[in-house]
Formats: sequence, structure tokens, C-alpha cells
Amino acid sequence: AMAMPAIAQTAPSIKWRLTSGFPKSLDTIYGGAEVLAKRVKELTGGKFQIQVFAAGELVPGGGAAFDAVQAGTVECCHTCSYYSFGKEPTFAIGTALPFGMDFRQTNAWLYYGNGQKLLDEFYANYGVQSFPGGNTGVQMGGWYRKEIKTLADINGLKFRVAGLAGKVWAKLGAVPQQIPGGDIYPSLEKGTIDAAEWVGPYDDEKLGFYKVAKNYYYPGWWEPGPVIHFFVAKKEWDKLPPEYKAAFEAAAAEANVNMMAEYDHKNPAALSRLLGNDVKVRKFSPEILDAARKAAFEVYAEESAKSPAFKKISEDYFKYAKVQNAWFSVAEASMAQYLHAAK
Amino acid sequence: AMAMPAIAQTAPSIKWRLTSGFPKSLDTIYGGAEVLAKRVKELTGGKFQIQVFAAGELVPGGGAAFDAVQAGTVECCHTCSYYSFGKEPTFAIGTALPFGMDFRQTNAWLYYGNGQKLLDEFYANYGVQSFPGGNTGVQMGGWYRKEIKTLADINGLKFRVAGLAGKVWAKLGAVPQQIPGGDIYPSLEKGTIDAAEWVGPYDDEKLGFYKVAKNYYYPGWWEPGPVIHFFVAKKEWDKLPPEYKAAFEAAAAEANVNMMAEYDHKNPAALSRLLGNDVKVRKFSPEILDAARKAAFEVYAEESAKSPAFKKISEDYFKYAKVQNAWFSVAEASMAQYLHAAK
Repeated sequence: AMAMPAIAQTAPSIKWRLTSGFPKSLDTIYGGAEVLAKRVKELTGGKFQIQVFAAGELVPGGGAAFDAVQAGTVECCHTCSYYSFGKEPTFAIGTALPFGMDFRQTNAWLYYGNGQKLLDEFYANYGVQSFPGGNTGVQMGGWYRKEIKTLADINGLKFRVAGLAGKVWAKLGAVPQQIPGGDIYPSLEKGTIDAAEWVGPYDDEKLGFYKVAKNYYYPGWWEPGPVIHFFVAKKEWDKLPPEYKAAFEAAAAEANVNMMAEYDHKNPAALSRLLGNDVKVRKFSPEILDAARKAAFEVYAEESAKSPAFKKISEDYFKYAKVQNAWFSVAEASMAQYLHAAK
Repeated sequence: AMAMPAIAQTAPSIKWRLTSGFPKSLDTIYGGAEVLAKRVKELTGGKFQIQVFAAGELVPGGGAAFDAVQAGTVECCHTCSYYSFGKEPTFAIGTALPFGMDFRQTNAWLYYGNGQKLLDEFYANYGVQSFPGGNTGVQMGGWYRKEIKTLADINGLKFRVAGLAGKVWAKLGAVPQQIPGGDIYPSLEKGTIDAAEWVGPYDDEKLGFYKVAKNYYYPGWWEPGPVIHFFVAKKEWDKLPPEYKAAFEAAAAEANVNMMAEYDHKNPAALSRLLGNDVKVRKFSPEILDAARKAAFEVYAEESAKSPAFKKISEDYFKYAKVQNAWFSVAEASMAQYLHAAK
């Protein structure tokens, strides 16, 4: 007779609720939570079930998802930490820092550098621990009613951008506007705002910005590889049997690589369709990029003066980024540049 | 009372053997199999155990690992399909094609494009199915006793390189040499060969090539994002309960993103140490890259004439690559170039 394994005799039925920071209409980023939930269910023979709620179903999206985990309303969420920047500047780091690291570099920092450890020390203050669970890749720089050629064109620009990135834009002379996703299009159409950033071609296309603002700038230097995290309440995590912890961890890692592949699959076709709609794809000028980078490091100095955690973690992050860039500038960059230019 | 879940009553104890195509000394690439085995064991409460053997312990490395799965000697392996190029040219595609796609692009093709489906149709001829399970990133172009400035310098060059890449190098005038890993160093030292390629800074450093050939070229245009696959015998796969299949799949995806992060973490420091050992890091000239790309597509035409499978899958691959490059040349490339150049 076959011996019953330990898991069989003790495996409890566990039901968790996960609130996403995003609406279902952002299907790729919202879908990351469904990828996790489906896999966890399969891995546990249906015993560990995570029910996914879209932003607004239980609690609002963005930072409210994190707050709900902290408050114990739900066991876990899937969102970007930087929505909670208003609480404490360190929340910006886990998602992305302007002129920071890309998808692969961020993963290296999180999985093999000090990233995961440092961030979880910080999140522990909120009773939460983190699992990287998706990435959008380098974002686009947004939609502008008029061309932005020089710094003078940024002066007074009403730009929909939030958090730490908004502080950097403010130093360039822009007037950051915090507007929920659904209100961006009418504001841009009416001219209440001059420009708005969202994600990349696939998500941006769905909101229709190309109809009312034809100048589509790149790169989104304030989001070079934004991480979407699963955040879990520590006291719920600690109750899980080891097999369920393993299931959550493996499924989160899978969701991480899966979302990146899904965006990389969907963005090219979307960009191609946008170009067919008379969109002008334009590159930020070196003058603007240089000024933005300088402004970003001024903001880092200011936030570091206010928050020891921001100082400690951002310094580790940029030290790591420097070493990464020295390596990526060799084989990776030369191969990419050659292949992109090849006819 | 708590109901027993279906899995508990039926979960069988399963032991598989996995043979790696690599020795333990290639710790990162060999380690991918251990990452999978450890996770599968955790996910199944110790019921599904995969014992990992290094190359040479049960069967030799490289393509012999695939053969062992096909023959039923082991249930699965972790190796590069291109070692089996001699059997059928299509085996080259699953790993990497010269001037093909990078890590992210390859994942997009495999997970969301036609890649996985087309490759598994091909591997089905061998009773095998595939799971992407690691990547090295763009490799370096190898170690050369003398500088390679023009095509004339390649004429007669005895270069350690195998498979389809060897055919491309032969068109450039090189004389490809197939030498096992352990014999490369003495051959390079004695001058029996003029140059050798291996992986990237971390792995290359351990073999000590920098002591006997100081010119370290990049990029390794014949391996822009080589995949290490888990190959499983179809008849063994079909016997697994759904939970174990899910465990293997999730663990393979995790091994895929994990290995890339591990290489990205280790390579920068290794490159830095190599530079401290008087290594000259040099970029292949545009003349050489252009001639190599032309030669690569000549080889693709020749292999396509011999193998309908190669023609079908490589055409899909390069069609996908073209669309990917159009997108990657925008936000990703401009961000990377700016960050690599920033002081």
C-alpha cells in the first residue's frame, strides 16, 4: 500500500482574497494576478484558492490595495509600491526609480543582490512582505498635445504624472497633475492637461490618447523597468504550510517572467497600429534627458535627507545599477544596436 | 472535519532522474536543474523527486543528455538543443540562432508567439517535449590569441566553435574546431587552436582563457540569448498527475528567470576582474558583423533546403524577430543607450 505523504494528512483548505491595484481593462497587468491564482490552485490540487478582485471591487486601486493588505482587509494584493509614495518615499524604489534599472537588472538586484532583503526589511514596518510578480519593461514617455523640443517647452506643462516622478518633472518646470486613469482622456481632449503618461503602446492604445495628442515620446525615463509586486500580510504568510509558500513563490516568479513576455508580445503590434494612426513617435532630446537625470538625483538627495530608509536602499540600488550598466554596455548593447539597425 | 482533497488520496511517489548537459563546474547553468528539482520537491511535499546528475555521471553531456531522454535512460534532462544539430538542423533553433533574438524576445516567441508550439511539434518526433529553463543572455564572442580586425584575419583561423555557428564561421574562412570544454585551455595555450568561445565573463574566467589569449571579443553574435531547455520524455510526462505537471511547469519558468538573473548578477564582477588581468575587450568590426550576418542567412537558406522543419520554424522565428526589433529599438534601446553612457 502507498504511504500517505505528510502533506495529504495536513493540507488545509485555504481561501485568500487578492485585490489588484488595476482594473480588468489593463488586461496584461491585471492578468498577472490571475496567472498566480490559477497556478497556485493547480499546484495545491485546489486546496489553496486565491480569489482575485479588480481595483474598485473591494477597495480602490493603486496604493489602496497595499493599504488593504496592511489593514488585514485582504490577505494579499498585486500592485506597484510607488502608489504609496505619499506615505514614505521608499515605496518608490520597489517599483522603479527614474534613470534606474531595467527588467533584467532589477531582477538581478532583487533575486541575487540586496534588493529583496532591503525592501522586505522596509515593508516589514507595514506587516507586509513582497514577491516580484511582473514588469512592463521600459515604458513610453507619454502623449503630448504639442512637441516638447527644449526645456522651455516643459515650463508650465500640465502633465499627468504622479509620485516621485512628478517631483522630478516639477523640477523641470512642469506642473504634475494627479488624475485617475479614466479621467485622462477627456482632460487631454479638452486641454485641461497638456500631456499624460500611462504605460506603453498596448495599454495606451486602449485609452485612445492617440486621438487627442499625437506626439508620443520615448523613453519613459522615470520607469525603466517597473515591477508589479505581490504583497502578502506577514501574519497570513506565516500561517501557510511550506508547500503553499512554495506554490506562491514559484507562481510569483512565473508571473514575473510571464508578464514581461506578454507585454513584449503585445507592444510591437500596438505600436505598429498607432503609427498607422498618424502618431508621431519622438525621442526626448539629450538636453531634456540630461536635465531630467540631474533633477532626479536632486530629488534622491532631498528624499534621502528625509528618510534614512530611502537613502540606504536607493544608494544600494544605484551602486548596483552602475555595475550592471558597465556590463550591459558590452555584449547586450552592441548586439541589440546591431540587430535593431539591420535591414 | 476537514475533507481530504483529491490529491491527497492519489498523490503517487515519483522519482525521476535528470541528466544535465553540463558539468558542476558550470555552476550557474548546471544549477538551473537543481533549482527545478528543489522547487518540484517542495511543491509536492517531497512526493515528486528529481535526482540531478552532472554530465558524465550517467551519460556524457551536451546532446547525449537529449539522446538519453529519447532512449528512455532518464525521464528528463537539462541541456541545449543545439548540441543535437548534427541529427537535424532544426535542433539549433530552440537554443539560439546567429543574429536572432535575445532573452526577452525569445521568451515572447516561446510563451506567446508560435515558438513553443512549433518546437514541441518538432521534438514530438523524438518522443520529447520541452520547457524553457534558463538563459545565459548575449554571450561574449570568445578569446583570440591575435586581434581580429578584418575578414582577412579570420581566414584560416582555427576557432573552437560548434554546430550551426561553426558553419557560419566556416563561410567567413575560419576552420571550426570541435573540442570538449576541458581541452580548450591547453589547445589555446599551445596554439593548436587560435581562438575559442565559451559563454560569458563568469564562466570564461573559471577556465582561465585570459591567461593564454588576451583578446576578448563581443558580441557573441551567434548566441544572442541561448535557451537551456528541460526536455522530458513524453510517455513519462503523460503519466504525471496534473499537480506534478503544474509543479514542473512552474519550476521551469522560475528556473528560466532565475538563471538569467544569476548570470546578470555574476557577469559584471567577473568582467571587472578580467579587465584587471590585462584582458583587452574588443568589439567585432562592422565589416565582420555584416559578413557574418550575410553568411548566417546563407546557412539558413541551405538548411531550409534540406529540412522543411528548419525552414518553417526559422522563418517564423525571424519574422517574429523583425517585429520585436522594431519595438525594442524605441523605448528599450534609447533608455539603455542613455543609461550606459551616463557618468
